[in-house]
Amino acid sequence: MANGILKIGIVGGGQLARMLCLRGWELGYEMHILCKDQHEPAAQVTHHWHQGDGHRYGDLAKFAKIVDILTIESEFYNADQFLRVQSKHQGLPIWPSPASIALLQDRIPQKESLKRHGIATARFMDVDSKESFAVAAETFKKGFVLKQRTHGYDGYGTHVFRSPGRATWQAQFANHKWLAEEFIPFDRELAVLLVRSRDNSIIDFPLVESHQVDNRCDWVLGPTQNPNYKKLLNQLRRYLVKIDFVGAIAFELFEIDQKLFVNEVAPRVHNSAHYTMDAFQFDQFHCHLLAISGKRLRAPQALTPGFVMVNLIGKGGKNIRLPDKIESHLHWYGKNESRMGRKMGHLNRLLYKNQSPSSLAKSLKKLVAITLKERNSIKL
Amino acid sequence: MANGILKIGIVGGGQLARMLCLRGWELGYEMHILCKDQHEPAAQVTHHWHQGDGHRYGDLAKFAKIVDILTIESEFYNADQFLRVQSKHQGLPIWPSPASIALLQDRIPQKESLKRHGIATARFMDVDSKESFAVAAETFKKGFVLKQRTHGYDGYGTHVFRSPGRATWQAQFANHKWLAEEFIPFDRELAVLLVRSRDNSIIDFPLVESHQVDNRCDWVLGPTQNPNYKKLLNQLRRYLVKIDFVGAIAFELFEIDQKLFVNEVAPRVHNSAHYTMDAFQFDQFHCHLLAISGKRLRAPQALTPGFVMVNLIGKGGKNIRLPDKIESHLHWYGKNESRMGRKMGHLNRLLYKNQSPSSLAKSLKKLVAITLKERNSIKL
Repeated sequence: MANGILKIGIVGGGQLARMLCLRGWELGYEMHILCKDQHEPAAQVTHHWHQGDGHRYGDLAKFAKIVDILTIESEFYNADQFLRVQSKHQGLPIWPSPASIALLQDRIPQKESLKRHGIATARFMDVDSKESFAVAAETFKKGFVLKQRTHGYDGYGTHVFRSPGRATWQAQFANHKWLAEEFIPFDRELAVLLVRSRDNSIIDFPLVESHQVDNRCDWVLGPTQNPNYKKLLNQLRRYLVKIDFVGAIAFELFEIDQKLFVNEVAPRVHNSAHYTMDAFQFDQFHCHLLAISGKRLRAPQALTPGFVMVNLIGKGGKNIRLPDKIESHLHWYGKNESRMGRKMGHLNRLLYKNQSPSSLAKSLKKLVAITLKERNSIKL
Repeated sequence: MANGILKIGIVGGGQLARMLCLRGWELGYEMHILCKDQHEPAAQVTHHWHQGDGHRYGDLAKFAKIVDILTIESEFYNADQFLRVQSKHQGLPIWPSPASIALLQDRIPQKESLKRHGIATARFMDVDSKESFAVAAETFKKGFVLKQRTHGYDGYGTHVFRSPGRATWQAQFANHKWLAEEFIPFDRELAVLLVRSRDNSIIDFPLVESHQVDNRCDWVLGPTQNPNYKKLLNQLRRYLVKIDFVGAIAFELFEIDQKLFVNEVAPRVHNSAHYTMDAFQFDQFHCHLLAISGKRLRAPQALTPGFVMVNLIGKGGKNIRLPDKIESHLHWYGKNESRMGRKMGHLNRLLYKNQSPSSLAKSLKKLVAITLKERNSIKL
């Protein structure tokens, strides 16, 4: 920590690492990135790119030697390796902790711990064979979702069975361990992001509504309301204290008849909270960096009565051309090529005038339409 | 322009280049920096640092070959060299144009052009000898300021003579060419930043009040009012069209008995507009980048009724330590050491509630006091 400036190392080179890195520079951290290729989104925005693979112990150990605090942009690294790195480097701060990563990266212990803390989720069971698959199909008569226990995201590693009577085990399923979850015919998908600091201060950003296309977050609007949210939020805050979680963490929720169920937990900064970059004085990246360096978090201050975030999704275009006039706030990820379904960037758009609760919903709907239209003008 | 992504090259590696670079990444530009040392503020925040000196033609020409658009963070480069680079590289876009740089970097042509366009400035004359110095002392009986024609900033290269009768020529003055300006006993110092795009759209950020300590901007508050401002703003907008200026440009003003005089012109992003980073949806760096790439500028949308910016000024501290709790929005420049008087970063702080005109002034005064107090908690 020469000069009193903290060196933060991020394992991973994608867009989440990139946005953390850009914000870190602003806040006076020296930002280091570990990833394979110098053209990855985060590697471009620092002079301190370190070539390596976060899944290899040797690369991690070398990287850990350089930095003062280690953090991740994905929960799918090997938690044991992080633990070994930590003990080798005299307790190097790694946040979220290897124990938190281990708990939350595997859907079975994750869901069991939510259940233990009284947080509602869909009914679930372990599936690792043709036989246990048949038990799931028998149990969840109204339908179920088969999710890889680890490494699933954006619908990858997910299979939905709406008619369990006809559900058949496939040979390829044998390559993974699975969680079978009762299908919830939700009315809305919601999300919330919380951040807990090493000093135990916790903050939460508002409840938002998220819209998926092809199992991938397409756009988000907020803030939104739910009569049962306050109770859930208190449970989530207590949960973070109980599991001693440090950093940003996203909870994706199902709403059905106003009841709330936790669907997914992502122990990191998250796509559903990208709106914070423009709609709040301090965004999720800012708060995550403060949290892992033990600084005090303050309740986030909204700069707008309402906001919309729309993802820019790749269509495989060969010649990406940003239009001459973008009225939203563009956040581009600097990916070296457009691929079908790839997240290339996002647009944030804000409401400026205060609104009555009824006109807010209407104004947000209009804002979504304008922003989606703007997205269509961008060749992706 | 592989992949449709524009490469922007910034000549210079200081904090203005750093903040342009960070914003540029967000907006989807590939950001390249030309400066001498890899530890300079801007060199840290890009994978595309190019070692070289913006004052050397060879380095500039090499840099120009790599990028699609060239811009500067200081007006004190050699405009002729930029012109040569431009003609060598088939009209490479350089903004502001070499002609604008030449016009505005030298205080004599700068002031003459302001005068020609009816913009009020202090009376002035050329000083390049003991004799012309004596004429100035004789003409400006109420006091005058001797300013280097080029390369002056933050009070460097400035000498104030409050009692011209006793003003004496010093041998060291022979090393420079000078502008002598009648001393204006101003009531307030104000500033405004405008941006003009290649497509001729022009925007302006609000009028702000700036407070100097040791001839250096110490803090800024805004917005503020002046009954003659609207007229001046129209003149300034017309002026930018007439001189075909492209990019961000700051005008520092004197206010005396509500009359306004242009004191300094800086043809670039500027310290007095750093508040825009938090107080506006699109900040000065964002607008400068849109302007030089020919995109349409939209009237900036304020996120707050009032704002304060306080500079973090170095005191030569050996061990910079950022405190655990900063309530303002910190923007740190990543300088490798603290030196006395060096700008190390700045703090932005916003008002959230709408205010009546009378309570706004009071609230801003309180906000300044809180932010200055917060600065004192930071070891610099």
